[in-house]
Amino acid sequence: MTALLRRDLPDGEARWSGDPPFNFVGGHNDPASVPFGGFAEAAAVALARHGPALARYNLGGSPQGHLPLREFIAAALDRRAQMPTDPSEVLVTSGSLQALDLVNAAMLAPGDPVVVEEATYAGTLSRLAERGAEVHGVGLDRDGIRIDHLDEILGNLAARGRRPKFVYTIPTVQNPTGTVMPVERRHQLLEVARRHRVAIFEDDCYADLVFDGSRPPTIRSLDTTGGQVVYCGSFSKTLAPALRVGYIVADWPLMGRLLALKTDAGSGALEQIVIAEYATAHFDAHVAQLTGVLDSKCRAMAAALRDNLAGVAEFDPPKGGIFLWASLPPGVDTAELVAPAAAAGVEFNPGAGWCVDPAYGASRMRLCFGHLPTEAIAEGIAALAGVVHASLD
Amino acid sequence: MTALLRRDLPDGEARWSGDPPFNFVGGHNDPASVPFGGFAEAAAVALARHGPALARYNLGGSPQGHLPLREFIAAALDRRAQMPTDPSEVLVTSGSLQALDLVNAAMLAPGDPVVVEEATYAGTLSRLAERGAEVHGVGLDRDGIRIDHLDEILGNLAARGRRPKFVYTIPTVQNPTGTVMPVERRHQLLEVARRHRVAIFEDDCYADLVFDGSRPPTIRSLDTTGGQVVYCGSFSKTLAPALRVGYIVADWPLMGRLLALKTDAGSGALEQIVIAEYATAHFDAHVAQLTGVLDSKCRAMAAALRDNLAGVAEFDPPKGGIFLWASLPPGVDTAELVAPAAAAGVEFNPGAGWCVDPAYGASRMRLCFGHLPTEAIAEGIAALAGVVHASLD
Repeated sequence: MTALLRRDLPDGEARWSGDPPFNFVGGHNDPASVPFGGFAEAAAVALARHGPALARYNLGGSPQGHLPLREFIAAALDRRAQMPTDPSEVLVTSGSLQALDLVNAAMLAPGDPVVVEEATYAGTLSRLAERGAEVHGVGLDRDGIRIDHLDEILGNLAARGRRPKFVYTIPTVQNPTGTVMPVERRHQLLEVARRHRVAIFEDDCYADLVFDGSRPPTIRSLDTTGGQVVYCGSFSKTLAPALRVGYIVADWPLMGRLLALKTDAGSGALEQIVIAEYATAHFDAHVAQLTGVLDSKCRAMAAALRDNLAGVAEFDPPKGGIFLWASLPPGVDTAELVAPAAAAGVEFNPGAGWCVDPAYGASRMRLCFGHLPTEAIAEGIAALAGVVHASLD
Repeated sequence: MTALLRRDLPDGEARWSGDPPFNFVGGHNDPASVPFGGFAEAAAVALARHGPALARYNLGGSPQGHLPLREFIAAALDRRAQMPTDPSEVLVTSGSLQALDLVNAAMLAPGDPVVVEEATYAGTLSRLAERGAEVHGVGLDRDGIRIDHLDEILGNLAARGRRPKFVYTIPTVQNPTGTVMPVERRHQLLEVARRHRVAIFEDDCYADLVFDGSRPPTIRSLDTTGGQVVYCGSFSKTLAPALRVGYIVADWPLMGRLLALKTDAGSGALEQIVIAEYATAHFDAHVAQLTGVLDSKCRAMAAALRDNLAGVAEFDPPKGGIFLWASLPPGVDTAELVAPAAAAGVEFNPGAGWCVDPAYGASRMRLCFGHLPTEAIAEGIAALAGVVHASLD
């Protein structure tokens, strides 16, 4: 049958062969913090209430998703992110990856320009490449997108008669840099985008995990003219990544177009009813507990890096989330460290895949601290440091 | 933002406004048969066992899906469909719709020919149209695909230097005709496809629901040369459609290519662990009960059609599943009955959307009997009959 495959397919996957002991990749979370007992209680209640409705696609309701879950999401966005939201503006998706796929599919034809942060989520970069988008990277500082650079990029494109479809941004716990865009910068971003008549795609997947709790209002909430920002979020980082539940917040008629592209007959209803039941009662308390655990894991990783790679690995401590973005000396290619690190039991994300310009990312690496216990973080960073030092010798 | 949308998008969806009282569309199932108590027990056990693993994508395991679920699927296919299967050949998907998407994406470039049954699943037809495939419809009789017609189609295409990527077939409880392909026909289908070097895509979503329990061996199980058939199935029809869990059975390296295209970070793990726990203990008994219920609903619909549309609606009683395919007199366009039926509280699938040649389908309709209680089925068919009779006056 392989003779019949498309000729332009990506390479096949290798057979899965397990993870290394020191896994610093991916959006994994703290196993001890998964509230599985609460999920079981929620499942019993939710199944007693909604069980027969499972006989119908979308539980017999709107294709936008289980209404009590959309009500929870809308209320949480208002309470936690100062974004008053109506459940009719919410579309439940199978993880935020499906949110990316739907928004990209609605807006991007091959060759369309888009602007993304110069270092950004690898899954976004691969999706944009797959769609044939023309990707422009905007510079970052410790407050996120550099507005002057964005204005310059948009102006240069306009001078060539080009206009990006959107600026994709992860403003709160930026992936991979871990910064949080201040509210004033958000206003500036909206102003520049509005002036250039460009939409904003706000990916807020990590925004619940700000360590000191100071989550700014969303960019979408600051859009007083309305309709300029499409927003997505996720329960992967706050509850559990193996649950595939994310969401889009958008105005009608964009919502209607997204629904027409969501041809999956709905996202998983069991996960939706369980999360709705659990989160309505326990979300804020759970996230407060989890954020404390992640903060201490972050400190453990930062301390291990300072102990083992002082003067070699530079980083700003992230303001939340589950990852840290480190720079090695210029000339180091972190992609070349992957194999020796694997031999030492360590897996990490080399920076090139997380940057619009792979050369910019080459000396950088993303290290995720959410999954391993603190002692294993220290041990794994020590092992990684041995690999880095050997490469510098 | 709508000014920034792609120009070639499908129309937006209308806002969802609820279902009519007599809903004869979609793959809905019997609400009273959903084993939600069993799901709750399974959830408690499964979450106690696998809860912390939810902190990791794919539960920390293979991207092919939760191993105990793949083990159940493999064992059930061996036991129920005479197809010995190894769990390494199984990929868990978000419903069988994702299975269709992945196989289509792996095999079909725009313009590629494919062969499908002349009346087939509307979701397949819309997906093939979206991909720009060149769709050829092969004739059906009461045993499924007419082998002589298939041979003729493949021969004609070969004479023009064309070769379809695959023959897509729903051999067991064909959608929408409800036929079951006998084993001898399956051997013939394999022989013709092999001679023309064409793959077979076997969609077995309804195969567990044969009313008299006489499920034939799968076509894939009869493929002694190996690798000619890719297979998909689903739990939507046997457990609950709102659970989005389906599966593909394929050989490596096709499996590796499918995995590379499955960029969703895994299908929902809660649904996977609950189904694995529930199904391992209860699947066969549950399906036996459900099939009995569906059989009696089918008889109720057939009786109502005979009572209310004798000499007008012709049909062969389906051998299983949840739908019945009826023909009205030539010249009737069932699409024109949609609006008056809706006014009478009835929704059905007009046949054109379920046929390669819309003109062939125009006088036909698909009526789903899985969802409504038997009394409502009789009442709804009576209401529909009123609409049909009015159109013939």
